[in-house]
Amino acid sequence: MPAIATLEALRAFVAARDWDQFHTPENLAKSIAIEASELLECYQWSNEPEQERVEDELADVVTYCIHLANRLGVDLDEIVMKKLAKADQKYPIALAKGRATKYTELAEER
Amino acid sequence: MPAIATLEALRAFVAARDWDQFHTPENLAKSIAIEASELLECYQWSNEPEQERVEDELADVVTYCIHLANRLGVDLDEIVMKKLAKADQKYPIALAKGRATKYTELAEER
Amino acid sequence: MPAIATLEALRAFVAARDWDQFHTPENLAKSIAIEASELLECYQWSNEPEQERVEDELADVVTYCIHLANRLGVDLDEIVMKKLAKADQKYPIALAKGRATKYTELAEER
Amino acid sequence: MPAIATLEALRAFVAARDWDQFHTPENLAKSIAIEASELLECYQWSNEPEQERVEDELADVVTYCIHLANRLGVDLDEIVMKKLAKADQKYPIALAKGRATKYTELAEER
Repeated sequence: MPAIATLEALRAFVAARDWDQFHTPENLAKSIAIEASELLECYQWSNEPEQERVEDELADVVTYCIHLANRLGVDLDEIVMKKLAKADQKYPIALAKGRATKYTELAEER
Repeated sequence: MPAIATLEALRAFVAARDWDQFHTPENLAKSIAIEASELLECYQWSNEPEQERVEDELADVVTYCIHLANRLGVDLDEIVMKKLAKADQKYPIALAKGRATKYTELAEER
Repeated sequence: MPAIATLEALRAFVAARDWDQFHTPENLAKSIAIEASELLECYQWSNEPEQERVEDELADVVTYCIHLANRLGVDLDEIVMKKLAKADQKYPIALAKGRATKYTELAEER
Repeated sequence: MPAIATLEALRAFVAARDWDQFHTPENLAKSIAIEASELLECYQWSNEPEQERVEDELADVVTYCIHLANRLGVDLDEIVMKKLAKADQKYPIALAKGRATKYTELAEER
C-alpha cells in the first residue's frame, strides 16, 4: 500500500515542486494532524457532511501518511499488520467484545 | 489500497469484537484525529523519536483511515489520485516550486 | 486571564524544572493540539465521559494556552475580545441565527 | 478566569445567534481540537508565523475552552490549579529538571 502508480504520482508531484525539503518526518506528522482535524471539521456540527468534502480531507490525511511511510522507509500494509497483532493481544475477544473500553482498563479486569 | 489481506484482517478483527456498532463515520473521524495527535506526540519535544513508536502510531492513523474509506465505500488510491489532480491545479509548478505557501496566498499572486 | 496566582504558579512550576527551554511557541502549539486531542478522546466512543477526566484534559489545554500567551506577550482576555469583534462581523445575527453554517458559506448568501 | 466582561461578551454572542443548541460538551471538545490544529497550522512549515494569525487562532481555542468550562460548570483557574498539583506529583523536580521525559518513563526511574 499504496498502489505503485499512486506512490509514483505523489512522488512526482512533490519532486516537481521541490517540496522534499519541507517534508521532514516532524513536518509530515504535523501535517497529518492538521489534515485529520480538517476531516474532523466535516463532522463538527453535523454527522451528515457532504461526501466529496469528506473524501478530499481523508485523501489529504492518507497522502501525508504515504509520504511519512516513504520517508521512514516502511510499508503501510506491513506496519498496519504488525500493529494489528499487538492490538489483538491488548483486546482479547472475550473481554473486548461489544465494548469500547480502553485496553488499559481492560487490563485491570484480567 | 490497502492489500486485500490487510483489509480482510482489519475487518475480521473488528467483526470478532462486534465493534462495527462504534465505527460510525463521525467516530472514525474523531479516532483518526486522536491517533494523528498521538503520532504528533512522538515529535512533541524532540525530532528524533523511537522508530517503532512512530510506526505504531502511523499504523493506527492508517488503520482508522482504512475503516473510514470502507464505511464510505471509497478506495483510498482512488480518492488520493482524485485529490492530487485538484492539488495540481491549486499549486501550479511555476508558482509553487520551492515554496511552502498556501494555495489561497498563491492565488493572490496569479 | 488567568488570575495572577495561577500565572505565577504555572511559571514557578516550569522554572523549577528548567523547562522554559522546551517551551518554544511551536512546541507549545504542538502541545495544545496534543492535549486538545486527549480532551477529544474523552468523547471518542461516548458522550458521557467521567467529569474529572474531562476537567483534567481541559486544564492541560488551557495550561499550554496560558504558556503560549505568556510567550507571545499577549493577554488571553484581550485576544479573545479582539477575535470576538471579528467573529461578530463574519457571523451577522440576521444570517447566522440558529444555524451552524461557516462564515465562508454565509458570505455567499449576502 | 476569564474576566467577567469576557465571559459575558461570549455568552451574549452565542445567545444572540441561538447557538447554545450546538454547544454540547462533545461538539465543544471537537471544536477545541479543530481550532488547536488551526493554531498548529501556523507552525506547519515555518516557526515564524505572523503574530496576528497566531493570536487569532489561540483566541479561538481559548474561546471554546471557556464555553466548555461554562457548560461543565467549572472555573478554569480552579481546574488548572488542581491539575498543576497532580503534575507536581508526577514530575518531581529532582527527576524532571531539564528533561522533557514523560512521567510514565520517569516513574520507571524511581
